[in-house]
Amino acid sequence: MRTRAAVAFQAGKPLEVIDVNLEGPKAGEVLVEVKATGICHTDEFTLSGADPEGAFPAILGHEGAGVVVDVGPGVKTLKKGDHVIPLYTPECRECDYCLNPKTNLCQAIRSTQGQGVMPDGTSRFSTLDGDSILHYMGCSTFSNYTVLPEIALAKVREDAPFDKICYIGCGVTTGIGAVINTAKVEAGSNCVVFGLGGIGLNVIQGLSRIAQADIIVGVDVNPAKKEMAEKFGMTHFVNPNEVEGDLVAHLVDITKGGADYSFDATGNTNVMRTALECAHKGWGESIIIGVAAAGAEISTRPFQLVTGRSWRGTAFGGARGRTDVPKIVDWYMDGKIEIDPMITHTMPLDDINKGFDLMHAGESIRAVVTY
Amino acid sequence: MRTRAAVAFQAGKPLEVIDVNLEGPKAGEVLVEVKATGICHTDEFTLSGADPEGAFPAILGHEGAGVVVDVGPGVKTLKKGDHVIPLYTPECRECDYCLNPKTNLCQAIRSTQGQGVMPDGTSRFSTLDGDSILHYMGCSTFSNYTVLPEIALAKVREDAPFDKICYIGCGVTTGIGAVINTAKVEAGSNCVVFGLGGIGLNVIQGLSRIAQADIIVGVDVNPAKKEMAEKFGMTHFVNPNEVEGDLVAHLVDITKGGADYSFDATGNTNVMRTALECAHKGWGESIIIGVAAAGAEISTRPFQLVTGRSWRGTAFGGARGRTDVPKIVDWYMDGKIEIDPMITHTMPLDDINKGFDLMHAGESIRAVVTY
Repeated sequence: MRTRAAVAFQAGKPLEVIDVNLEGPKAGEVLVEVKATGICHTDEFTLSGADPEGAFPAILGHEGAGVVVDVGPGVKTLKKGDHVIPLYTPECRECDYCLNPKTNLCQAIRSTQGQGVMPDGTSRFSTLDGDSILHYMGCSTFSNYTVLPEIALAKVREDAPFDKICYIGCGVTTGIGAVINTAKVEAGSNCVVFGLGGIGLNVIQGLSRIAQADIIVGVDVNPAKKEMAEKFGMTHFVNPNEVEGDLVAHLVDITKGGADYSFDATGNTNVMRTALECAHKGWGESIIIGVAAAGAEISTRPFQLVTGRSWRGTAFGGARGRTDVPKIVDWYMDGKIEIDPMITHTMPLDDINKGFDLMHAGESIRAVVTY
Repeated sequence: MRTRAAVAFQAGKPLEVIDVNLEGPKAGEVLVEVKATGICHTDEFTLSGADPEGAFPAILGHEGAGVVVDVGPGVKTLKKGDHVIPLYTPECRECDYCLNPKTNLCQAIRSTQGQGVMPDGTSRFSTLDGDSILHYMGCSTFSNYTVLPEIALAKVREDAPFDKICYIGCGVTTGIGAVINTAKVEAGSNCVVFGLGGIGLNVIQGLSRIAQADIIVGVDVNPAKKEMAEKFGMTHFVNPNEVEGDLVAHLVDITKGGADYSFDATGNTNVMRTALECAHKGWGESIIIGVAAAGAEISTRPFQLVTGRSWRGTAFGGARGRTDVPKIVDWYMDGKIEIDPMITHTMPLDDINKGFDLMHAGESIRAVVTY
């Protein structure tokens, strides 16, 4: 079949919205009509050329929602008409990782996914001239139709709006999951969140609305972020540029001794160090969410760890997608969490490059493409 | 009263064994006759001048065992004749730290202990000329008699030999505790231990005899360490100087995918990085035990943490001394753990500088002074 898609032909160039060929689903695969997709910084990271593993041409996009159109041989858990959210972290429920309760990093299709192909080693996408186009993060939601492995799709309720729940495919789950799955924040905890963008806001609502944290400090150099973060539950705002003296000491003071949990949602390795060092002596945990520049390293004195702080990280919020994503969709539909105020812009696929421009300009929290 | 003590008058100089004055115990304090004391690298670290917080003159020593001789007003849990092990990490059971199950870092007397004085701000030790001499780590076991706060003494059974259980005051508890309290290693885990000195050997016996780990890899540049480590349960020995290619890859291979838990007992920040990076993707934890040189920093790419490794540290093996040390003494007396082979040298106080020489030469695992 043919489908309309935004193709990244080259690093650093705008996407080209064109018709491409899409083969139907093979064994264990599912054809999905994408109804909406968010534009995430990770797409931008790859498109810019900064991602050392980025390969082109590819169809980017990994934060989508849609409907099953067809299933390949052997698919048992999904059928035509099911509403689904694509998962860049799949959940096979059979590999050593899925069977270990300490991790969500299913390895069943990691190698082929990293190479931009389906598990059989080939791509379903090609140009009208027949040249292969790579998949991206196993999702490629910047295409109106896409093919995914069955294990990379979460089935969700049918009354949930695609243009909102697509955000659960990455940002919402990453932020809230970092709080509840990775950090396992206890009620009454005092926390610090660095970076009040799309991820940081979801960390904040995870802390305030799900985990019932007490003090929730948001740190951002952009004072315009304060108002929205307060709506999601931030109790204290700190602009590092306005702090006289030591930032760590200031944060330790606000949190009455240090953060029980701190979160980096900036990707800046200097900020990651501050996040660790403002954690409470004896038990503070710092969680790295942000993706750092290639080659960047984190550093600290080991004394910080020996005196009881721990340094950890999270991917996709520690969520097991097929199990956890439907629950988060329920929380949204039940009003436990909010998404609508974070979807600041929507646009058709033809205007997808404007979505990237809004992100660059810092004007959007999340821009969503609706098909 | 007068007591014989080894006094550190100056950084970098040998200890001087002389008579000093010792005041009796004040409120909440206990006078202890020290029967034996180990010589630990931390004493050497301070004596050498490398410890930025080292202060002189002081009576070093923090790994002792002895008998209560007298108690000050208000002391309720100890009486004359009780056998005790001094605790450089006390356990008041009342501060915010003692009441938080995540940490053992009792803060009740931290400030005065760091200054080398008792909780009332004064020292009990002085020269015969009346000049004050500082306490060290709240213990000063390089004196035949010493005074400690009640909360810094673990009461232990009376049939345990002082010249062996003194080692439980630091090295044994630090190594075994890192395994059972900090890492909470599960039976069947695969582990890597860096540094096969006095701490590393105790990590190994904690893994093999208490936690029932499966693969236990020991890493040391000194092949002479292999034999003893095997006696304590090491299953594989790796000499980094004999590994062709990447050490991390080699360790990941031996542990079938990476260490569930790795431990640094070297204090070398480059080794700490290797320890982290050989931990298993998804769930591996690396525990820093060693004390690094002043100003030294650990580094890694944050990707190591985002893909599921965590970096932690431990002090005194995460043990709450008054509660946990008596249990470890029982394990020794019951034959669950061994100490005797690690006490390679004993000597009288007058020869204490020879104990430091043996440590420098790498000839001792533990040298113990008996009074």
